[in-house]
Amino acid sequence: MESQFIAWLRSRLPPATAGVLVGPGDDAAVLAQSEQGDTVVTTDMLMDGVDFRLAEADPRRIGRKALAVNLSDLAAMGSIPTAVVVSLALPHAGGFALAQELYEGLLPLAAEFDVAVVGGDTNTWQGPLVLSITALGRTTKRGPLLRSGARAGDVIVATGEFGGSILGKHFDFTPRVREALVLAERYEVHAAMDVSDGLSLDLSRMCSESGCGAVLRPDAIPISEDARRLAARDAATGSALEHALSDGEDFELLLAMPAEAAARAIRDRPFAARLTIVGEFTAERGLWSLDAADARVPLAPRGYEHRMT
Amino acid sequence: MESQFIAWLRSRLPPATAGVLVGPGDDAAVLAQSEQGDTVVTTDMLMDGVDFRLAEADPRRIGRKALAVNLSDLAAMGSIPTAVVVSLALPHAGGFALAQELYEGLLPLAAEFDVAVVGGDTNTWQGPLVLSITALGRTTKRGPLLRSGARAGDVIVATGEFGGSILGKHFDFTPRVREALVLAERYEVHAAMDVSDGLSLDLSRMCSESGCGAVLRPDAIPISEDARRLAARDAATGSALEHALSDGEDFELLLAMPAEAAARAIRDRPFAARLTIVGEFTAERGLWSLDAADARVPLAPRGYEHRMT
Repeated sequence: MESQFIAWLRSRLPPATAGVLVGPGDDAAVLAQSEQGDTVVTTDMLMDGVDFRLAEADPRRIGRKALAVNLSDLAAMGSIPTAVVVSLALPHAGGFALAQELYEGLLPLAAEFDVAVVGGDTNTWQGPLVLSITALGRTTKRGPLLRSGARAGDVIVATGEFGGSILGKHFDFTPRVREALVLAERYEVHAAMDVSDGLSLDLSRMCSESGCGAVLRPDAIPISEDARRLAARDAATGSALEHALSDGEDFELLLAMPAEAAARAIRDRPFAARLTIVGEFTAERGLWSLDAADARVPLAPRGYEHRMT
Repeated sequence: MESQFIAWLRSRLPPATAGVLVGPGDDAAVLAQSEQGDTVVTTDMLMDGVDFRLAEADPRRIGRKALAVNLSDLAAMGSIPTAVVVSLALPHAGGFALAQELYEGLLPLAAEFDVAVVGGDTNTWQGPLVLSITALGRTTKRGPLLRSGARAGDVIVATGEFGGSILGKHFDFTPRVREALVLAERYEVHAAMDVSDGLSLDLSRMCSESGCGAVLRPDAIPISEDARRLAARDAATGSALEHALSDGEDFELLLAMPAEAAARAIRDRPFAARLTIVGEFTAERGLWSLDAADARVPLAPRGYEHRMT
């Protein structure tokens, strides 16, 4: 059935894509060397019970998410997505139909971002569903946006809203590819990353890579309706702000920009997504929040980390 | 612990590698555009209970295999390996030490083939161990070796020996990267693939991609000592020849070459690995074996296919 699945997949993909010299079906794919830009490569693995629950979720949303999280990483690099390979570990029973549904979810997103599915590895086993996607992109003339470029005095700029993604956004978010490219092209951006594990945790990582610290303005953080909903439903899970600071899977961008460039971008509104200044990078290492009197209070980075002993 | 693991990994990798502009630790890696060659990309996922048994195998051999199967695909394309990304789904308990052992197995092979480990995704969960590696390479001036180039009249050339890889070779094989590059550079090669699922099954796939058929000479097929050992141990599993035709995980190359070029390569002995003419491609589609009277007998392709319903 594996060969039959590959035959189905080849029939389901667009017949020819610019730059794809060899697509699925050979030992490897071949992509034409682009005239400009270096190659950007990222990979993300999604597992049943960790990143989704197959028993509860539409497989198309799972397939879409597996691609979207990779595109979010390419966005965080300010790069243009080009191609992906998709590996699946499927259950034996119903694996064919499941694989089709996963692809039916990811293919529209691939088309939307002009990404070619150039290969993969389709397996069956007795374990839970695993999807592993590697995405390739290319840099623009500006070069890649790194985590490590934030400087003291830069403001912290965030796209979109934070918290509560478990209510649906972790499946249905739009990777900020276009927003990152617009910002990198038109404004001075010193650093960027995407928030996958939690705003405060990922910001602390960005600081650590940049060798600086950060102060967050809690009243400026764009809190999603879903974060408010979670807090209202069960206050024991934390306030809406706490959800926004630590929930993870927001897949929004954090950027380090000079204050003037950030202010100009916010004035220009170059895209529909909200753009907010949520704080400032500092020379002193550490993470702080400003209290009501504008005094710094240490903030413990919180978010999702894989448990490993 | 995830961050600690990444810190360990970054300390374990060579400090800088030519062509790697951004290595592990950012949202994605960046590889310098090579001066020549298109980008080749392949991916393979290995799962506990299917491709290895964690309870029985040294994790270093598992890590090595996960990389080696990808390099074998790049070899089959006649391409030069450049970089890999490594995704892991590890058990919570002992995951850190296991991940280290997997890497200690794959890093020496990466060094041997001058491949940079540029990123990955390290996860823990309650399911069995999964490794997913994506390997990048670049084509040579000759261009990629495809499965689809075999022509009627070409001989079928095989590297190494076949069958019985379950006794150890499926872990410890050397991917035929150097052999493929030498053959592609010095001799006329029309098509190539690597044998991962079984000589007869993979040959039938090569025929199908090339729009031709093939006749195998059973007395010419290089049968491994391990295939003979399996047949001697339990005749019910098939003859040594049957093992060679269908066992899979040989990770040897099948090549389509003009008879004269193949004869010259075999005379030249350009590398240590055995090189054998095992049959011929035919205009008529199908797969045959020659009997003692040199008459064609239909041969059913056999090998490993993932069960999927």
